[in-house]
Amino acid sequence: MDVVSSLSDLKTVRLSLDGTVGLVPTMGYLHEGHLSLVSRAKAENKNVIVSIFVNPTQFGANEDLSKYPRDLERDLNLLSSLFPPSSEQKLVVWTPSDEIMYPHGYQTWVEVEALTKVLEGSMRPGHFRGVTTIVAKLFNATQPDKAYFGQKDAQQVAVIRRMAVDLNFPLEVIVCPTQREADGLALSSRNKYLNEAERKAATVLFRSLSAAKELYEKGERDGENLRRKMKEVLEGEPLAQMQYVSCTDYDTLEELDVVKGKALLSMAVFLGKTRLIDNFILG
Amino acid sequence: MDVVSSLSDLKTVRLSLDGTVGLVPTMGYLHEGHLSLVSRAKAENKNVIVSIFVNPTQFGANEDLSKYPRDLERDLNLLSSLFPPSSEQKLVVWTPSDEIMYPHGYQTWVEVEALTKVLEGSMRPGHFRGVTTIVAKLFNATQPDKAYFGQKDAQQVAVIRRMAVDLNFPLEVIVCPTQREADGLALSSRNKYLNEAERKAATVLFRSLSAAKELYEKGERDGENLRRKMKEVLEGEPLAQMQYVSCTDYDTLEELDVVKGKALLSMAVFLGKTRLIDNFILG
Repeated sequence: MDVVSSLSDLKTVRLSLDGTVGLVPTMGYLHEGHLSLVSRAKAENKNVIVSIFVNPTQFGANEDLSKYPRDLERDLNLLSSLFPPSSEQKLVVWTPSDEIMYPHGYQTWVEVEALTKVLEGSMRPGHFRGVTTIVAKLFNATQPDKAYFGQKDAQQVAVIRRMAVDLNFPLEVIVCPTQREADGLALSSRNKYLNEAERKAATVLFRSLSAAKELYEKGERDGENLRRKMKEVLEGEPLAQMQYVSCTDYDTLEELDVVKGKALLSMAVFLGKTRLIDNFILG
Repeated sequence: MDVVSSLSDLKTVRLSLDGTVGLVPTMGYLHEGHLSLVSRAKAENKNVIVSIFVNPTQFGANEDLSKYPRDLERDLNLLSSLFPPSSEQKLVVWTPSDEIMYPHGYQTWVEVEALTKVLEGSMRPGHFRGVTTIVAKLFNATQPDKAYFGQKDAQQVAVIRRMAVDLNFPLEVIVCPTQREADGLALSSRNKYLNEAERKAATVLFRSLSAAKELYEKGERDGENLRRKMKEVLEGEPLAQMQYVSCTDYDTLEELDVVKGKALLSMAVFLGKTRLIDNFILG
């Protein structure tokens, strides 16, 4: 395992890599969700690059940048256990600083339009501009053959897939299934903010999505009925405060009256001060 | 010489190239200025890719997109003469269509901020967003080691250099000197719009820049005095209508009170309906 920070060290180690490269972009504080992406990247590539960077430009002014959890030593231990010294595959961990990614005079932004105006984008202005900009930078700096993202962040996945096609990035975007606790809660670095009661209540996202999916599997295709079902379940949990529920086309993220083809059920819910998101794919 | 249009053909031919690749992005209707970029790319790389694409997103609503000159057959003849069949170097010409570059649903833009708000950017809203977006796409699709641009478009060069650094593109931006007619007029595809009287008058840009440079070489460092000298010369030419003259820092394009280090004299001037730009570097 090589750990590098500067762009010049990254460039040197990137040039030394023979064969395919899989990139797993992360903000650190790794959990099983991240590790499943790393394992998938390892299975599909000769080399794996994991970036660890808490990207300031994707946090809004009122969001949790300063208290976002960080523990590099723990992250490196988790990653090195996946790449024991005997491994013939190479792992590079890139841990740039804010000054490396956004030096004095920085002024370039990558923006995806329509897809970023809805759902998370409508609640978090500027968030996706930060995401697409940093991901474009990571793609260019690491030159991967494949890049791995979790379905947990469904809109992020849709936006990045669009960006990669629109800007002709010569790589494949691979979307991996959401990893969950035994009771259904989607893994997230933000789960650590939940107190005991909130943690129990947080299964309501999974229960709400499951109820709507069950309706769908029984033949329901009315988007409004599916959204209503998700709301009903959320309203049954006193500690949960719904921000939105949604039933959209999978690619365009346009809200659906009638579900046809691949669709996305998604939601954002506050448990106390902690904002959680989750989603299911239909069809 | 390989001529390809589709992205998949480009990808196939790009994968077949061994060794370094130099990219020369053009809008076609090639003149000696373009050919000097191609020659420089040929001297510095094993392979050369020339893109020919009149990029609609960098033209304003009132600009000359529909009448922009095009002559692909002539362009290909000029290029093939630089790469005779006996050449050991390979030339790829990429001629994508509007539909290939901006397919249905396209919605991603690359934007450089402060540098694009002044000079040409202030006169041509949206122009540089179109330029940076298409250049990012060309960089990604062709994966060059070096990319060649002419100093003639001084602000474009400053903006693209900034974008390449900010977005971590793994390539070198090479800036080549402006090519000129014997009487000093900078080569431009738009020169063909000039009638005989306008063509004669068009040397006024070169004369104006030369007069200011002469002052500079005599020791003048006051930015306003250099701008005044350029204006004076332009005002002596009845067929010329000045749009702006400028004396800025070379990198930041900030207008200078006092010239220190590398600076840029630049201007935009109408000859009849034809808008010409030109510039000199100081220091």
